[in-house]
Amino acid sequence: MTRIHFNEVVTRDGFQIEPGFVPTDAKVALVDELSECGYAKIEVTSFTSAKAIPMLRDAEEVMGRIRRVPGVEYTVLVPNVRGAERALESRADELNLVMSTSETHNLANLRMPREKSFAGLKDVIVLAAGQVPVNVSLSTCFGCPMEGEVPQDEVLRWADRFARLGVRGLTICDTTGMAHPAQVARMAQALRERFGALQLTLHFHNTRGMGLANVLAAVQAGIVRFDGSLGGLGGCPYAPGASGNISSEDAVHMLQAMGYDTGMDLERLLAVARRLPQIVGHDVPGQVAKAGRSTDLHPAPGSVAELRRAFM
Amino acid sequence: MTRIHFNEVVTRDGFQIEPGFVPTDAKVALVDELSECGYAKIEVTSFTSAKAIPMLRDAEEVMGRIRRVPGVEYTVLVPNVRGAERALESRADELNLVMSTSETHNLANLRMPREKSFAGLKDVIVLAAGQVPVNVSLSTCFGCPMEGEVPQDEVLRWADRFARLGVRGLTICDTTGMAHPAQVARMAQALRERFGALQLTLHFHNTRGMGLANVLAAVQAGIVRFDGSLGGLGGCPYAPGASGNISSEDAVHMLQAMGYDTGMDLERLLAVARRLPQIVGHDVPGQVAKAGRSTDLHPAPGSVAELRRAFM
Repeated sequence: MTRIHFNEVVTRDGFQIEPGFVPTDAKVALVDELSECGYAKIEVTSFTSAKAIPMLRDAEEVMGRIRRVPGVEYTVLVPNVRGAERALESRADELNLVMSTSETHNLANLRMPREKSFAGLKDVIVLAAGQVPVNVSLSTCFGCPMEGEVPQDEVLRWADRFARLGVRGLTICDTTGMAHPAQVARMAQALRERFGALQLTLHFHNTRGMGLANVLAAVQAGIVRFDGSLGGLGGCPYAPGASGNISSEDAVHMLQAMGYDTGMDLERLLAVARRLPQIVGHDVPGQVAKAGRSTDLHPAPGSVAELRRAFM
Repeated sequence: MTRIHFNEVVTRDGFQIEPGFVPTDAKVALVDELSECGYAKIEVTSFTSAKAIPMLRDAEEVMGRIRRVPGVEYTVLVPNVRGAERALESRADELNLVMSTSETHNLANLRMPREKSFAGLKDVIVLAAGQVPVNVSLSTCFGCPMEGEVPQDEVLRWADRFARLGVRGLTICDTTGMAHPAQVARMAQALRERFGALQLTLHFHNTRGMGLANVLAAVQAGIVRFDGSLGGLGGCPYAPGASGNISSEDAVHMLQAMGYDTGMDLERLLAVARRLPQIVGHDVPGQVAKAGRSTDLHPAPGSVAELRRAFM
C-alpha cells in the first residue's frame, strides 16, 4: 500500500489572504490540533515583514508556543536571508523558499525579476547548509494567470538550478488552479525522471474544480507528497468566488477510500475542519466536512419500515 | 482524439430539488440555450405526477415549446406506463427509467421494493418497443447513504436484467457522491466487458469533491458518456451544504483542456451557466463560470511594467 505524505499549509497559505486577523492563540491552538492528525509536515507561518503580510506578524510567537509532536516537521516560508535567520532562531525544521517560474508573476508577486529572486534564495540556501533542510516552492508551474502557458522545460530548468544547490525538496505549485490531469501526469513523470532523489511535492488549487482529479493523476504517476489546506482555505485573487487550495481533508478522504495509506486520522481531521469556519468567520469550500465521509450512513426514513411491512 | 458525449440534466435533476418554482418560460428558454451548446442529449423534464414533483408539473408544455435542434436527443424521465404514454405524446426522443440498486433507497425514494419497480419498468419497456429507445438509470450504484456498500455484482445483476429487455443504454449513478476513483475504474471495466454494445453513461455527484476525479477515472477506463448538470445544480438531501451533480461546464472544461473532443461550445455554455444563478435565485457550485477558463488571462498590475524598467 503506497504511503502518501501530507503537508498542511492552512495557517500560512490559507490564512495569508484572510481579511480579518486570526488571533495568535487561535493559530497556536489550530497548529496543535493539526499536529495530532498525522501530517508529515505543517507549514506554520512565514518570516516575512509584518508590513507585507500583517496576518503573519506573530511568526516568532506562534513558532515559540506550538507544541511540537515528534515525527511532524514544522516548516516555515522564508523570503530572504533576514527571514531565514529569524526562522533558524525559531527552530524551524525546514525552510521553504518560493519564487515563480513566470517572470511576470514573479514581478507582480515578489516585486523583482526571477534572476534576482534566485540570487537571494541562493544566499538563503548557503546560510541554511548544515543547519536545516531547504525546500523550494516554484509557483505558476502549470500556467501563469498573466502570461498563460509556462513551458514544462522552463519549470524543469528552475527546478534543476535549485537541485544543483543541494535543496532537499521541490514543491511544484499550480498557484491559480490552471493545471489539468494530462499536464500533471506529464509533469510528474518528468520530475520523477530528473529529480527522483528529491522530496517531490505537488501543490494544487481547486479553482476550476480539478483539484482532486489532479491529485489522482499525480498519484497515478508516482507522486507521494501533497500540500493541502484545511477546509480548502486560501486561494487566488484572480478568481473571486472560486475555491482556493485543495482541501486537505477532501484529498485525504479520497485517497483513503482508494486504499492509500495517508498516515492521517481522518475523523480527527474532520473535527478540526468543522471548527475552521468559526476561526475565520465564514464558510469554507471543503466538502467532506459538510457532507460527511462516504462511509457515514444515514437512518432510513420511517416510511421505509412501513413499506417493507406492506410489501412483505 | 476520443469523442466524449454529454447529457445535460439541469432542467430535470437539477431543478427537481429547487425550493422555488422555475417558470415555464425560463425552463423553455434555458433548454433552447443549452440546445446550442453541443450536447448529445438533454434530459428536459419528468412525466411524473404534478403532486409528487410540483416543479415539473409543466412537462407537456415545456416539451411542446422547446425548439428541437437536429443532432440533440431530448430525453425525459418516466416513472411508469402512464408517464411513458404522456412522454410519447410529447414526442420524447428517449425514455429514461429509474430505479435503485439498493432496496432501502428504492423504498425511500420510489416507495416500493425493487422487484415491483422492475416489473413496472418492464411494462414501460414493452410499451416503448419499436417507438423510442429506452435508457435505464440505476441509482446508488457506488453506495447507498442508508445501506452503505452496494456490491458491484448487485449493480451488474440489475444492469443485466435490463440489458436482456433490450434497453439501448444504462446510466450508472453515484446518487449521493460516494464513489471514489478506484471503484469507478473497476465498475467501468466490468460494465464495458459485459455491456460493451450498450450506451454506457456515468452519472456523478461532487458531494465530497471527487466528481471530476471520478470522471477522469471513468474516461481512463474507456467511458465516453457522462451526465452533467449546469452549474453543478441538483444534489442530495443527505448532504446539506455540499454540492450536487458534477457541473457540466467544469467537466467539459477539464476534458477539453486534456485534449478530448467533447463536441461542446464551452464559451457559449459558460455564458448560459453565468445566467443560472438569476434563474434559481442563488449561487451555484460550478467553479469555471466564476474563475473563468484556465486559458482566460488577466492583465498584469501596473507595477509590473515599472519594475521591468527599474530592473532593466
